[in-house]
Amino acid sequence: MTLPSPLRGIIPPLPTPLLAPDKLDVEGLDRLIGYVLAGGVHGLFLLGSTGEGPSLSPRLRRELIRHACRITRGRVPVLTGITDTSAEESVSLAQFAADAGADAVVVAAPCYFRTTQVELLEHIRRLVPRLTLPVLLYNIPIFTGNAFEIPTVMEAAKLPGVIGFKDSSGDMIAYHRMRLALSGRPGFSLLVGSEELLADAVLLGGHGSVAGGANLDPRLYVDLYEAAMAGKLAEVRLLHDRVLRLATGIYRVGSYGAGFLKGIKCALSLMGICGEALAEPYVPLDGEHREHIRARLEEMGLLGVTVR
Amino acid sequence: MTLPSPLRGIIPPLPTPLLAPDKLDVEGLDRLIGYVLAGGVHGLFLLGSTGEGPSLSPRLRRELIRHACRITRGRVPVLTGITDTSAEESVSLAQFAADAGADAVVVAAPCYFRTTQVELLEHIRRLVPRLTLPVLLYNIPIFTGNAFEIPTVMEAAKLPGVIGFKDSSGDMIAYHRMRLALSGRPGFSLLVGSEELLADAVLLGGHGSVAGGANLDPRLYVDLYEAAMAGKLAEVRLLHDRVLRLATGIYRVGSYGAGFLKGIKCALSLMGICGEALAEPYVPLDGEHREHIRARLEEMGLLGVTVR
Amino acid sequence: MTLPSPLRGIIPPLPTPLLAPDKLDVEGLDRLIGYVLAGGVHGLFLLGSTGEGPSLSPRLRRELIRHACRITRGRVPVLTGITDTSAEESVSLAQFAADAGADAVVVAAPCYFRTTQVELLEHIRRLVPRLTLPVLLYNIPIFTGNAFEIPTVMEAAKLPGVIGFKDSSGDMIAYHRMRLALSGRPGFSLLVGSEELLADAVLLGGHGSVAGGANLDPRLYVDLYEAAMAGKLAEVRLLHDRVLRLATGIYRVGSYGAGFLKGIKCALSLMGICGEALAEPYVPLDGEHREHIRARLEEMGLLGVTVR
Amino acid sequence: MTLPSPLRGIIPPLPTPLLAPDKLDVEGLDRLIGYVLAGGVHGLFLLGSTGEGPSLSPRLRRELIRHACRITRGRVPVLTGITDTSAEESVSLAQFAADAGADAVVVAAPCYFRTTQVELLEHIRRLVPRLTLPVLLYNIPIFTGNAFEIPTVMEAAKLPGVIGFKDSSGDMIAYHRMRLALSGRPGFSLLVGSEELLADAVLLGGHGSVAGGANLDPRLYVDLYEAAMAGKLAEVRLLHDRVLRLATGIYRVGSYGAGFLKGIKCALSLMGICGEALAEPYVPLDGEHREHIRARLEEMGLLGVTVR
Repeated sequence: MTLPSPLRGIIPPLPTPLLAPDKLDVEGLDRLIGYVLAGGVHGLFLLGSTGEGPSLSPRLRRELIRHACRITRGRVPVLTGITDTSAEESVSLAQFAADAGADAVVVAAPCYFRTTQVELLEHIRRLVPRLTLPVLLYNIPIFTGNAFEIPTVMEAAKLPGVIGFKDSSGDMIAYHRMRLALSGRPGFSLLVGSEELLADAVLLGGHGSVAGGANLDPRLYVDLYEAAMAGKLAEVRLLHDRVLRLATGIYRVGSYGAGFLKGIKCALSLMGICGEALAEPYVPLDGEHREHIRARLEEMGLLGVTVR
Repeated sequence: MTLPSPLRGIIPPLPTPLLAPDKLDVEGLDRLIGYVLAGGVHGLFLLGSTGEGPSLSPRLRRELIRHACRITRGRVPVLTGITDTSAEESVSLAQFAADAGADAVVVAAPCYFRTTQVELLEHIRRLVPRLTLPVLLYNIPIFTGNAFEIPTVMEAAKLPGVIGFKDSSGDMIAYHRMRLALSGRPGFSLLVGSEELLADAVLLGGHGSVAGGANLDPRLYVDLYEAAMAGKLAEVRLLHDRVLRLATGIYRVGSYGAGFLKGIKCALSLMGICGEALAEPYVPLDGEHREHIRARLEEMGLLGVTVR
Repeated sequence: MTLPSPLRGIIPPLPTPLLAPDKLDVEGLDRLIGYVLAGGVHGLFLLGSTGEGPSLSPRLRRELIRHACRITRGRVPVLTGITDTSAEESVSLAQFAADAGADAVVVAAPCYFRTTQVELLEHIRRLVPRLTLPVLLYNIPIFTGNAFEIPTVMEAAKLPGVIGFKDSSGDMIAYHRMRLALSGRPGFSLLVGSEELLADAVLLGGHGSVAGGANLDPRLYVDLYEAAMAGKLAEVRLLHDRVLRLATGIYRVGSYGAGFLKGIKCALSLMGICGEALAEPYVPLDGEHREHIRARLEEMGLLGVTVR
Repeated sequence: MTLPSPLRGIIPPLPTPLLAPDKLDVEGLDRLIGYVLAGGVHGLFLLGSTGEGPSLSPRLRRELIRHACRITRGRVPVLTGITDTSAEESVSLAQFAADAGADAVVVAAPCYFRTTQVELLEHIRRLVPRLTLPVLLYNIPIFTGNAFEIPTVMEAAKLPGVIGFKDSSGDMIAYHRMRLALSGRPGFSLLVGSEELLADAVLLGGHGSVAGGANLDPRLYVDLYEAAMAGKLAEVRLLHDRVLRLATGIYRVGSYGAGFLKGIKCALSLMGICGEALAEPYVPLDGEHREHIRARLEEMGLLGVTVR
């Protein structure tokens, strides 16, 4: 499908439903995609951090892409993360995604090794021409250890095929400065990774969010996006606070390296959408924390949702 | 072969000779292994950080293991890194290494996602039983983002098959404290990753070093190890300073994310051992820095070495 | 004077005009206070980071407080930072400020030593009763090395005399979460330190900003604050972008440890308001960077301002 | 007194005995100095981090210097920290120390504000000529937030009056590299702050240590220093392990921001040397942790020591 220019709206980073650490839950995936599409989301992002992309085996990544593209049937754009320590695997995965009908790939900075900004830009310049799909750059320094700085993004934005930047740094100052720097490129998309910053971003000129919580309550995030686009400030404040409550209630349970991931999978399981298996190095939340999540879902009216 | 208990000595982290970012330089590998074995090293460590292991494609990793095991012919133990963001790929690579005749695998903390110490230990407990070869744990928080803390190592050391710990944190206080904590386990190997700390480690009871510089001047590192083992302090000081000069002269050229890697590959190329191609995200040093490396090698008498 | 409840609006962190590293520029101070008050600011914050408070000698800090209170004559509230590595000096300075007519003190976490959150809260609980003026807490982890986390602020907010929290962490997610957590305390002020986040903060329910740029163009910041309060989104976007341009143009000149401070002092000097001397460990910008600042001021129409 | 060149040996960073957060325990100070001098230490370092220097009021700092110089009576060199966020207070304190008979001052990088290496060097160049006593530079980035890098130290070492460098970074690679870089300046002292690295440092050519544990068992540290100087490796290993046990047992009790400080004060109190009061932001260890310290002291035979 033709991607909107700029790409905008709510694009949930889809968790990968698993029956076991290396076994895809195809039925769960079907329910999950149906649920978020019914909520009005504007695209899907596969194999991001929330999708445990880097943790999945090369085979499972491809299975997921194939099934997700099949299930989605072009109703919204499908973006696919290709993060891997090996650029060869990234390129191969990107080609698979193109063949399977995905609409764009999402390119993070190298993980494992550290790069200077010069090295990062040169790497992107060598990598992008090897990718046949449009490219969304992805800044997630907490996991990759390498941040995209503004001048690097400005240069990378000139490369043919690079259509946008997703910032999951949580640094709203950098986001605002980048938006201003990009103001001469109206077709270039600037998305924010942190849903707690979705309201800020869209009110002040950003294009949307790759919001993990949109997997749990897609309509809430779509409503917030639309209210912000329409400048309905009172409604924005109300919905923004609901987003904050969801994120605080679900992602910050216990003391874990990736609470957001554990919380979302646990919630989806309690909502009857998919199983809560996680790929290594993680395991599902324990019983006590599971009950905490259940209580939060109940408060938010998310337990009784009918999926499809 | 039967591994020594504890594993000890100088075990160079072998760079992966490449003709291109995804093409193994088999002849260079042959020369490199011959060169370091002639220098008396006590083992080889494939696919570590210096070996660009995480950056290589799954196929190339296996090619390297196969050729390195073939070339080494059991003369010294061959250890193989299995670092990958996907535990499934790590397990698969470990099985390949076992089948190819490697002697041990080297297991780092998960890279990409962050783990608490509890999560890290549980992950190791699930992973180790899936590996058929002995396991050396590998602490390199600068690249993985996850550090092994002492209580975690103490627990992991009790797992069958876990034979040692390689610390590349550069934190000598932690190393000393760990050695003391491990004093009841005399067969458990405690290696230091940083060659600048080899003298400290061995003088005060450690077992050796995975020293990158041992690829350039293996005899120097073996001599230093032996002098430290023998308590010849005057000789240790002399050789320690030569190691410092080599490390400073070769690894800290220019401003790069992984100067040690670029410097070693450049030096090996200038010494006629193998090509200087690097896997993504890196490229070889530029001409000016190459000349700097050449001058350092000349000073250290390493340019005229006859390889084999 | 009675402080508004909650304290709100634009409260510039006043630079300390100096004739030399340890010599107050009293005339410059007079012009500076006159200038920002004419711009409509809602208060003054002395001896913050922008005021070089920690760098000034104990004597100079007191001189500044005395003169600033005298010049301000109660037209707006005067807040005084009391940051020092010694709590005794902080308490003494707070008493001086109370006697001189200041309206509140601003209390940062301890600098130099690190505290856990438990230690930080207990320290605040011992410190606050020793202060006679109302207390605004101040989160600036980049300089103190100690961050206030949300539960700590929630507990501290219950102490008699604690009237608000100024967050200069730049972490907008934390700011939003804190605002939500504080929603039951409508008299408690939540200010944002980073002017690049002023629009976000006020649009979504925050109370204002301690904006360094308000020293250079007070009217711009007051206008932005008022537009955000009134929900005039189009105007907010326009003014927000002007703030971003000012901050990027003035604070990020050259490569310095505290570019914002050097940039503001240089700009004030070029605008004829006060000298550009800085206290140790800093010195004024060099000529080239000074010309850069001049060009930015010219673009923004700030060079020709008539001061009073 | 004339300082040895280079300054060497064991120089304990003296805790400041307090009866209350702002009240000096003069008798405790007398006992403490007597105790460490009887143990053979080679100097005293007042107002370091272990001395809570930055936390003490300006008045108390001066009281301590005056009494410590009086009690020491020139038997060993007295070094005085002058760390403060205000360079003016540092200079004033240095002058007081000179007048009181101290032998050197210890100059850390600025705390609170961040400096680039260029700014740090320029600051040191302006500061040193204002100090009348010899200067030992002090690298403690964990507290100041600013590290001395090797080229900066090399330049600062050329300034008249700068006699040495104390590295409390814990980075032994940097220490070794700095020692090598300084090899042309045999009179320049290179001390290590971390006692766990004392053996490494002295065995490989360093000059000694500012070891906190030397306040508890001065003879142990002096013996280790002398054994390392004499190259008695077996003895070094034995004593090094005792130092590690002391440091692990006393400094890592509970979860605190400055466990070393709390542990040492608690131990000194249990040993009957001085009270355990601490300056803000800290308070003494609680009862449970106190019992833990008591048990460790008993194991190490330090409870029954007769002081003087």
